[in-house]
Amino acid sequence: MKVVFIGSGNVATHMAKAFSLAGYSVVEVWSPNFDNADLLANAVGAKPIASIAHIDQSADLYIIAVKDEAIAGVVQELTEVNGLVVHTSGTTSIEVLSSLKKYGVLYPLQTFSKSKALDFKRVPLCIEASDEETLQALKVIAGSISEQVFLIESAKRKVLHLSAVFACNFANHLYTIGQELLQHHDLDFAMLRPLILETAEKVQTNLPQHVQTGPAIRNDETTIAAHLELLRNNEEWGNIYQTLSKSIKKTYQ
Amino acid sequence: MKVVFIGSGNVATHMAKAFSLAGYSVVEVWSPNFDNADLLANAVGAKPIASIAHIDQSADLYIIAVKDEAIAGVVQELTEVNGLVVHTSGTTSIEVLSSLKKYGVLYPLQTFSKSKALDFKRVPLCIEASDEETLQALKVIAGSISEQVFLIESAKRKVLHLSAVFACNFANHLYTIGQELLQHHDLDFAMLRPLILETAEKVQTNLPQHVQTGPAIRNDETTIAAHLELLRNNEEWGNIYQTLSKSIKKTYQ
Repeated sequence: MKVVFIGSGNVATHMAKAFSLAGYSVVEVWSPNFDNADLLANAVGAKPIASIAHIDQSADLYIIAVKDEAIAGVVQELTEVNGLVVHTSGTTSIEVLSSLKKYGVLYPLQTFSKSKALDFKRVPLCIEASDEETLQALKVIAGSISEQVFLIESAKRKVLHLSAVFACNFANHLYTIGQELLQHHDLDFAMLRPLILETAEKVQTNLPQHVQTGPAIRNDETTIAAHLELLRNNEEWGNIYQTLSKSIKKTYQ
Repeated sequence: MKVVFIGSGNVATHMAKAFSLAGYSVVEVWSPNFDNADLLANAVGAKPIASIAHIDQSADLYIIAVKDEAIAGVVQELTEVNGLVVHTSGTTSIEVLSSLKKYGVLYPLQTFSKSKALDFKRVPLCIEASDEETLQALKVIAGSISEQVFLIESAKRKVLHLSAVFACNFANHLYTIGQELLQHHDLDFAMLRPLILETAEKVQTNLPQHVQTGPAIRNDETTIAAHLELLRNNEEWGNIYQTLSKSIKKTYQ
């Protein structure tokens, strides 16, 4: 099966490698930035393409992994292709692809960095398609690169994406605040790493609401006051501390 | 070496097992709740004690692992002992122990649940002591149960505890919000677990500020507006979303 990648960011990079590993032939990579397209193309034995107008029209699968706002523009370039076209966005409706013949969504619910390898077989893939036949084809394709394939309609996919922002993007920002607090006091972020990992490992077998700890759930006002005193020179962090503590108290009251 | 545990909560349970494994003799466990003392005592081959007034006065090490506000009361019961007395609190100053002969702090920077085993050797232990000789003794003791021992004064320990609240307690609450969002839409929290784990694993080798992703750092206002629209019926979560997104934008502007 011939696959064309449109995009060369973190998602495209990890997914192209997964398809390549699974025995698919990644034939071309296009990206708004040719150097990035070239880099990814080299990594998977594909050809980098400078102009999207010149991409191979005879591939079996086109994977759009560009910024959300760029998807509609890419779709206009693919109206003649007969292969299956999917986008990989968490927030974009499948409708953006409706001018195409066969289309779908292949959304990986994971955070990717080019610098960190990961086992793609364990990445949850949310799929959706233009019709039943395409859905079955996409299910087979998704199943060949991951063991975690879920049929998820656009509305629910948006909820998944939102929950991922809380559990991943916002959680990482809290790690950053922790890191900056330590740095201001000449303490090493390495001290915090085992705690961060254990917090995430705990919810692999428990629900997070069953393992909540800390001063807010204990209504430990002495500690909360001491922490706010430490944060008195940083209104922003103090505000985050109060907002989240209030929310924890409300959840468990 | 004879060790007495005062407390039977999560910290006491994991630490008593670690001392027992390291070859120490945990002789007694006292707790405000006798049943809990009995449970922990049985697990480590110790004797449960019903009244703190009757604890063994000849032990080498007394470990206070009770709620912060109960520490001072426990200290009053230990004024006659000759052994080393340590508390395990992140926020309580070493001064609470100053009426004793030899004292210190043994603060584990980790989150413990009775239901989940963990490798205590990797738990960062922050130590502090009444005098240099006691510090050296405590260093040896701490080093026998963990490979990660740090000399940390009370003021810095409080900062570590605060950063742990952000990186652990608050992060777990964000997982809970993610879970509740999914639950409201009949989606399984299991879908979010690989993402949570990967987010924590990423910062084991990177600094969190170098791996931040999501709509806020991209200034992706379309996605942010769509997310706030999904949260329109939950003012609290909408407020958390806006507060954290604003903080991310400010951090990377």
